[in-house]
Amino acid sequence: MSPKAVILLSGGLDSTTTLAIARQEGYVPYALSFRYGQRHEGEIAAARAVAAALGVAEHVVADIDLRVFGGSALTSDLAVPKDRAEEEIGAGIPVTYVPARNAIFLSFGMAWAEVLGAQDLFIGVNAVDYSGYPDCRPEFLEAFENMAHLATRAGIEGHRLRIHAPLMSLSKAQIIARGLDLGVDYRLTRTCYEPAADGSACGHCDACQLRLKGFADLGLADPAPYSVLPPA
Amino acid sequence: MSPKAVILLSGGLDSTTTLAIARQEGYVPYALSFRYGQRHEGEIAAARAVAAALGVAEHVVADIDLRVFGGSALTSDLAVPKDRAEEEIGAGIPVTYVPARNAIFLSFGMAWAEVLGAQDLFIGVNAVDYSGYPDCRPEFLEAFENMAHLATRAGIEGHRLRIHAPLMSLSKAQIIARGLDLGVDYRLTRTCYEPAADGSACGHCDACQLRLKGFADLGLADPAPYSVLPPA
Repeated sequence: MSPKAVILLSGGLDSTTTLAIARQEGYVPYALSFRYGQRHEGEIAAARAVAAALGVAEHVVADIDLRVFGGSALTSDLAVPKDRAEEEIGAGIPVTYVPARNAIFLSFGMAWAEVLGAQDLFIGVNAVDYSGYPDCRPEFLEAFENMAHLATRAGIEGHRLRIHAPLMSLSKAQIIARGLDLGVDYRLTRTCYEPAADGSACGHCDACQLRLKGFADLGLADPAPYSVLPPA
Repeated sequence: MSPKAVILLSGGLDSTTTLAIARQEGYVPYALSFRYGQRHEGEIAAARAVAAALGVAEHVVADIDLRVFGGSALTSDLAVPKDRAEEEIGAGIPVTYVPARNAIFLSFGMAWAEVLGAQDLFIGVNAVDYSGYPDCRPEFLEAFENMAHLATRAGIEGHRLRIHAPLMSLSKAQIIARGLDLGVDYRLTRTCYEPAADGSACGHCDACQLRLKGFADLGLADPAPYSVLPPA
């Protein structure tokens, strides 16, 4: 019997590619998304479309309200930065950082894995995000795995939860190339921090810029809809 | 200026005593409670009463739906065990264990601490719970602290989040004695896993039994209301 795995799925480019990789590695995927007070419900719609297109055993959307704490442009009224230079995107912790978000998401993933009897948990963090977000660093994931081992029934019974971050050392272009190899339809994915009402991407926030550069590095056009012509 | 601290507050005997200890140690307390699909809304009411009685700078109730995963008698339809012998209560992981609950709660506490600029987080776990719940063990809290250090902006900037578990090595009777010294009114606290509609405790679940024994060991009667006469 194929082993079960929980995959954190935002419906963005990275987590969608991660889901495709988990499937290809032979895991039965259980996708977990979060409605966490982000500005755009469209993330959930994208996650549902991706889960349906790639095929998952189950897709759970957990409601968690991170707005109660404030502190991030993604959950409050702070402005999302636009058109920043690449060096600037990589420097320091951006205002779009949501405090402790990956720790919270992984804790929920760990809870579901325990209930499912799964020993594998996939997260789509990668080296590009890692430059700015503290909870995308490999040493964070290792520390989380150690904590999870001690936190759960599985840990007491001797199994160990493994955290997989297959994109960790890949560039955005490499992630996209890998996903295209696996047949991912990137039109379904949504990356933008501040999409228009019709769901089209802004083309100017950090997330859009990193994504567009990834496609450009491969000499490809991003198939996702943009509300304005992205900068060449 | 007194340092801020986040205190996880369920409204039960342990977390209430922990809040009183944090205050006495000179912290400005920020209380954090969770509406997590537990059977009894009364927990939240108790937490509010306790926060008002002891005085906190702010009390946040975060909504998180742990029912989506099932797997515990506290969030699903599994039966809560009653009238178990003391040895039985301490043996193995009980069905009232909620998978990864403390990891999830502490992750939220960590998020709020980061937004507040607090470096201290209090949790009321203790040695009695520790016998059955994997995420009440000291080694779990230590691993969580290491993970938190790497997960947050504070970690990157060199501060370190400290997790305080002042009840860890205390018996239930010692916890109650400490709280009474600090003027805690235990009538306000709620411990029962399955209270009656009027909020009175059942007197027979594991939590009630441990609590009643704590008061009995001190030669005291529990001032909280019980729906039936508790066993002598």
